[in-house]
Amino acid sequence: MKLSLTEIGTRAKAAEQPLRTLGRTAKDAALLKAAEELVAKSDMLLAANAQDIRKGEENGMKPGMIDRLRLTPERIAGMAEGLTQLAAMEDPIGEVIGMKRRPNGLLIGQQRVPLGVIGIIYESRPNVTADAFGLCFKAGNAVILKGGSDALLSNIAIVQVIRDALAACNVTPDAIQLIEDTSRETTTEFMKMNGYVDVLIPRGGAGLIKAVVKNSTVPVIETGTGNCHIYVDESADLQMAVDIIFNAKTQRIGVCNACESLVVHEKILDALLPALKARLDEKQVELRGDEAVCRTIPDVKEATEEDWGTEYLDYILSIKTVASLDEAIAHINRYNTGHSEAIITQDYANAQRFLNEIDAAAVYVNASTRFTDGFEFGFGAEIGISTQKLHARGPMGLTALTSTKYIIYGNGQVRP
Amino acid sequence: MKLSLTEIGTRAKAAEQPLRTLGRTAKDAALLKAAEELVAKSDMLLAANAQDIRKGEENGMKPGMIDRLRLTPERIAGMAEGLTQLAAMEDPIGEVIGMKRRPNGLLIGQQRVPLGVIGIIYESRPNVTADAFGLCFKAGNAVILKGGSDALLSNIAIVQVIRDALAACNVTPDAIQLIEDTSRETTTEFMKMNGYVDVLIPRGGAGLIKAVVKNSTVPVIETGTGNCHIYVDESADLQMAVDIIFNAKTQRIGVCNACESLVVHEKILDALLPALKARLDEKQVELRGDEAVCRTIPDVKEATEEDWGTEYLDYILSIKTVASLDEAIAHINRYNTGHSEAIITQDYANAQRFLNEIDAAAVYVNASTRFTDGFEFGFGAEIGISTQKLHARGPMGLTALTSTKYIIYGNGQVRP
Repeated sequence: MKLSLTEIGTRAKAAEQPLRTLGRTAKDAALLKAAEELVAKSDMLLAANAQDIRKGEENGMKPGMIDRLRLTPERIAGMAEGLTQLAAMEDPIGEVIGMKRRPNGLLIGQQRVPLGVIGIIYESRPNVTADAFGLCFKAGNAVILKGGSDALLSNIAIVQVIRDALAACNVTPDAIQLIEDTSRETTTEFMKMNGYVDVLIPRGGAGLIKAVVKNSTVPVIETGTGNCHIYVDESADLQMAVDIIFNAKTQRIGVCNACESLVVHEKILDALLPALKARLDEKQVELRGDEAVCRTIPDVKEATEEDWGTEYLDYILSIKTVASLDEAIAHINRYNTGHSEAIITQDYANAQRFLNEIDAAAVYVNASTRFTDGFEFGFGAEIGISTQKLHARGPMGLTALTSTKYIIYGNGQVRP
Repeated sequence: MKLSLTEIGTRAKAAEQPLRTLGRTAKDAALLKAAEELVAKSDMLLAANAQDIRKGEENGMKPGMIDRLRLTPERIAGMAEGLTQLAAMEDPIGEVIGMKRRPNGLLIGQQRVPLGVIGIIYESRPNVTADAFGLCFKAGNAVILKGGSDALLSNIAIVQVIRDALAACNVTPDAIQLIEDTSRETTTEFMKMNGYVDVLIPRGGAGLIKAVVKNSTVPVIETGTGNCHIYVDESADLQMAVDIIFNAKTQRIGVCNACESLVVHEKILDALLPALKARLDEKQVELRGDEAVCRTIPDVKEATEEDWGTEYLDYILSIKTVASLDEAIAHINRYNTGHSEAIITQDYANAQRFLNEIDAAAVYVNASTRFTDGFEFGFGAEIGISTQKLHARGPMGLTALTSTKYIIYGNGQVRP
C-alpha cells in the first residue's frame, strides 16, 4: 500500500518520541536482528533485485549502472556486516557536554539528542537503504528514504525485511519508511516537508545534489563533489610527492577524494615532472598542463580554463604551475569544491600556512587526499562527506546525525 | 553608489581570505576603533536617523515601531559598548579540537574556522547593524546586511562609520556591506546567493523568518518564535511555581523566552490556581484555561485549540490541565516551537524524564524560561536563538558563527 507523503511524515514524527528514549541495548538488538534477517531472507531480496535488473536491462541501462544496482549474496552480507558493526559502536545519544554552573547557581550543559526525522535522497545502489537506516537509527532518528526508481523493488524488499525485524524487537517499524512513489513531483514535494523532516541528505552525483539544494526548503546537508588538489611545494621530498600523487590519483578513480589537479612550484617542475610522468604512465594517466608544464615534459595536452574546475573521476590529471605559495593557495581556494586539499612540503612555515589558509573540509600535509573517509578518520561508519560549512563538515559519522539541546538544572531561579 | 548583489557578493568573497588570517590583535583593535568612531560620529548618525524617523512618522508608523527605529546617544553608546565587550572576548578562531593520532601515524584534528560570508536579514532596529557586524567580524566572517527599508539612512550611516574605522585599521572594509536596495526582488535574490553567502540568519518576526526559510536556497539558521510552556508537576513546590511563572510571564512580555502557556497536573489545580491568579492579577494577566481550569477559578476565558499554539507576546497565559507527566510531555511536544520549556517539580524521576523527553532548544527544571539568552548562558553576546536542530540550537554566541575543518599532519602516508 502506497502511503501519501503526509502520512509518511506523520508516522515518522510519531516515531520520534519512542526513538528518542530507546536505549542502546534495544537499538543494538534491533540492528543485529535486522542484520540477521537480511541474510536469512537473501533469496527474497535477490528475487526482487532480479526484477529491477531485468527492467534495467530492458531499458538499455549501461553495464556500470547495472552493476551498481545489482545485489549479490556478498553484498547482502556486506549490508548485514555494516549493521552489525553499528551495533558494536558507542551510542552517541545522551552524552552531556560542557556542563557548567552559572553564578546564579543554574547548572547548564548540552545534551546530545537525535536530529529527529532524516530524509535521504539517493540513486540506484540498494545497499544505501540498509546503510543509511543503520546510521540514522543508531543515532536515534527516524529515516524516510527516497531511492532511485531503478531500484524500487529491491528497496521495497530491504525496507520490509528491516521493518519486520524492528517489529519483532518491539521497536516502531516507522523508524524506516520508503517513499514508493518515485515521481519527480513527489520528490520535489518531499524536499518541502518542513515540520516533518528535520534535514535532507542527498547521496549521489552532482546533478542530484544540486537539485536538492535548489529545491529544498528543509535544511540540507550537501555532500560532495571533490575537485581535490595536491600542491607540491618548492621544498617537497620529490619521492614522497610522486608516491602520494600516484596514490591520490590512481588508487581509486571514481571517488570524491581522488586527486584531480596538481599545483607545482615552478622551481621544481624540471625535477618533479619526468619522474611523476613515468610513474603515472603505469596507469595511462592523461596529463593536462599549463604552458610551463607542456614545455617541461612531452605528451601533455594543454589545459583549458575548464580543466581547473573539473572533477574528472577518470585517469586524467591537470597540472598548474605557480611562482609562490600565495599563488598556490589563491588558485586552490578559487577552484576547489571544499573537499580535500594537500601540500607536499618539508618547510614548516609553508605547511602551517597551507593548513590555516586553505578553505576546505580536510587539509593535509604530506599525505594522500584519499584518507578523507569516515572509516579512515576512525568514525567507524559514514553517511557521506559534507562539503558545506554548516552543522557538519568533512566525513559524517554518527555524531553528524545528532543535535544538542541545553538542559538546565535550577532550584527556583527567576530572572532579575 | 549602490552596488549590485553580485558585486557585493564578490567583494565579500574577496574579504574572506584576509579575514580568515586576521589575528585577534588586529580584530580587537578594529572593533575598538569602530566603537570609538560610532560615539565620535553620533551627530551624523542621529541626523541620518532623524530623517528615517521623519519619514516613518509621515507614513503613519506606529509609536512602538518608531521607538524601535529611534537612535539616541544612549543607544549609540550601547552599540559601542557591545563592540568593546566583543573586543574583550576570546577569539574562537584557530582552536583545534579532538586531535588524535590514527594507527597509520596521521594526526587528525578539527580546527575552528570562520563560516565565511554571513547574510543577516532584519527589520527596523538600526542597532542590529553594529551588533551583527561585531559578532560576525570577531568570528572572522564577512557580513552582508539587509536591514528594513524604514531604517535605511540610519544603516547607511552606521555601516559607513564602521567601514571607515576598518579602513583606518588596515582591515578590509568589505568585512561589512549593506544592501541598499531594499526591494522585495533584491531581498529574494539575496536568499539565493549560493556560492557567495554561506549562511543566512533572519532576525525579526515570525513572518520574516518564514519567508526566508521558504525562499532561501542558501542554508538558513532559523531563529525563533517561542511558544514556551511551564509544566507544574504534582510534586511541585507551589510557592516556587508561582514565583517562576510570574517571572517567566511578566518580567518582559514581548520576548521569545517568555512563558505563554501553563500545563498543570490535575491534582494540584485547586492548590495552585487561586494563589497564582492572585499573583498574576498584579499585572492584569488574562487567563485562558480548559474546562477544569474554568471550574477551579473565576474570570478565566475558555481556551480554544488556537490558544495552545499561540505565542501571545502579551499579558495573556493559557492553562491546560493534564492527568499525568506523559500527557504533559505529549502536549508540550505537540504545541511547542522548539524554544524553552520548564518543569516545576520536587520529583527526581519526573525531572529526569522531562529533561530527556522534551524536544526543545532549552529544557529547564525549577527555573524561569527567561534565562534562554546568550548573556545569561555565559556566552557574552548573542546573534539570536536558534530553534532549529542543525548546526546550532539555542542561544548562538561566537562559536555558532564558526565552522571547523579537519587538519591532517602526515609524513608520506598513502592509502593501501
